[in-house]
Amino acid sequence: MLISEIKVTVRYVETDRMGIAHHSNYPIWFEIGRTDFIKQLGISYSEMEKKGLFLPLIELKCVYKGSATYDDNITILTRIKKLTYSKLILYYEILKDGGENKLITMGETTHVWTNSDLKPININKHFPDIYMLLNKAL
Amino acid sequence: MLISEIKVTVRYVETDRMGIAHHSNYPIWFEIGRTDFIKQLGISYSEMEKKGLFLPLIELKCVYKGSATYDDNITILTRIKKLTYSKLILYYEILKDGGENKLITMGETTHVWTNSDLKPININKHFPDIYMLLNKAL
Amino acid sequence: MLISEIKVTVRYVETDRMGIAHHSNYPIWFEIGRTDFIKQLGISYSEMEKKGLFLPLIELKCVYKGSATYDDNITILTRIKKLTYSKLILYYEILKDGGENKLITMGETTHVWTNSDLKPININKHFPDIYMLLNKAL
Amino acid sequence: MLISEIKVTVRYVETDRMGIAHHSNYPIWFEIGRTDFIKQLGISYSEMEKKGLFLPLIELKCVYKGSATYDDNITILTRIKKLTYSKLILYYEILKDGGENKLITMGETTHVWTNSDLKPININKHFPDIYMLLNKAL
Repeated sequence: MLISEIKVTVRYVETDRMGIAHHSNYPIWFEIGRTDFIKQLGISYSEMEKKGLFLPLIELKCVYKGSATYDDNITILTRIKKLTYSKLILYYEILKDGGENKLITMGETTHVWTNSDLKPININKHFPDIYMLLNKAL
Repeated sequence: MLISEIKVTVRYVETDRMGIAHHSNYPIWFEIGRTDFIKQLGISYSEMEKKGLFLPLIELKCVYKGSATYDDNITILTRIKKLTYSKLILYYEILKDGGENKLITMGETTHVWTNSDLKPININKHFPDIYMLLNKAL
Repeated sequence: MLISEIKVTVRYVETDRMGIAHHSNYPIWFEIGRTDFIKQLGISYSEMEKKGLFLPLIELKCVYKGSATYDDNITILTRIKKLTYSKLILYYEILKDGGENKLITMGETTHVWTNSDLKPININKHFPDIYMLLNKAL
Repeated sequence: MLISEIKVTVRYVETDRMGIAHHSNYPIWFEIGRTDFIKQLGISYSEMEKKGLFLPLIELKCVYKGSATYDDNITILTRIKKLTYSKLILYYEILKDGGENKLITMGETTHVWTNSDLKPININKHFPDIYMLLNKAL
């Protein structure tokens, strides 16, 4: 199973007046994890879009266990939870670096495979090579 | 049951290169709904914070059914799904205005009642007046 | 001279851990002012884009005199500073509502008229009607 | 003269429907440059805040020469333009990596030294060690 790992530093703008990174940043960090996960497969989401394969999000879940603040280093772990011809479900864990590398957030995003008009397509039929790469990462 | 309703216009910055509002904006729009819902109760979240009552988010769910783009007018509907002494669950619907007022996104946020140090508190014990207002809105 | 006026409420996510709205929100609020200014002319930037007229930004200036925080109501005033066949310079003032309606930020954005490929065009040659509307607003 | 250099990858959320990174991201990237510049001095902005030294922004300028899009690697160069006992002016250049490392944006931010109540202070009087470090970086 492929688990991609990428590090990000919390930006000042990402904090709110509670003193911690606002919860709406986590879906953005998941997206950074997703970009990295696809790169680890040997492709890039940017190239996928050029070929006419898009991956819009239809469902999002986050569970917040802790928090992070400005200048904290966090690690985003991304893996596939489920792959079908029509959908992709990714699972994320966000750890705050430090003595214990504490798990602060878990998340899940569900995506559909679409063409550039955002119409659903069967990935195995239209992009069998990409499907095969994803299948190997399970 | 109180259902608050507030309108927002999609900002250019909120769109992405897919041509639609990025999915990470919906949690921010839910927050606008939440702010409005609390105002409809006769208080304000800003005053709650001044009194030492905070409402950090511990869980977030979004289901995307449609999309919106720059300059679209959307309506955010907010209601309570569940209220306890320790937690509050809110439910949101986002409609895109137009001929049919289409439902484009549903969401749910789970919050814990805390003090300014973000330590959990029993709202009925520490802020019975606010608990009563929320209870009436069920 | 046309001066458009639109109100916005500061979002929680827009604050940072200094307790005030982060400075990067002001360019976004200017954009809301710009959208409104164009609407007051009787057109919409969205329609302009559909016709193939784009207005990318090439220069931005902000001067911060005060600050705003969560739930503050602010007013964005927008007017034309300079109009030529190739460029548009807009000037903005952001006021925080309240007793004195205090001026908190002034700004300026310089734009070039382009086609959808972001190549510069002469607005008077390609869109004389829109140029005339802008000219009347001086 | 110290010039700090840090790399960032453009996020999907940072693009807009024009297909390029929205102009409001550049002030955020300047902030990443600023954070890095201060780290290169041997301190951290986070520690400065803990000691009661804040650096709010009072003026911002950006000149856009080019653009970047999703997954582009950019380099942020930061240096001091002017240092006084009451103010700090930083100058930024943003380059898009690739064959030619093209300069896409230049910027400048003016800051005042303040205490945690955001009241102006004389840095040389209150934090002579930090002033000395900055002075060496000129």
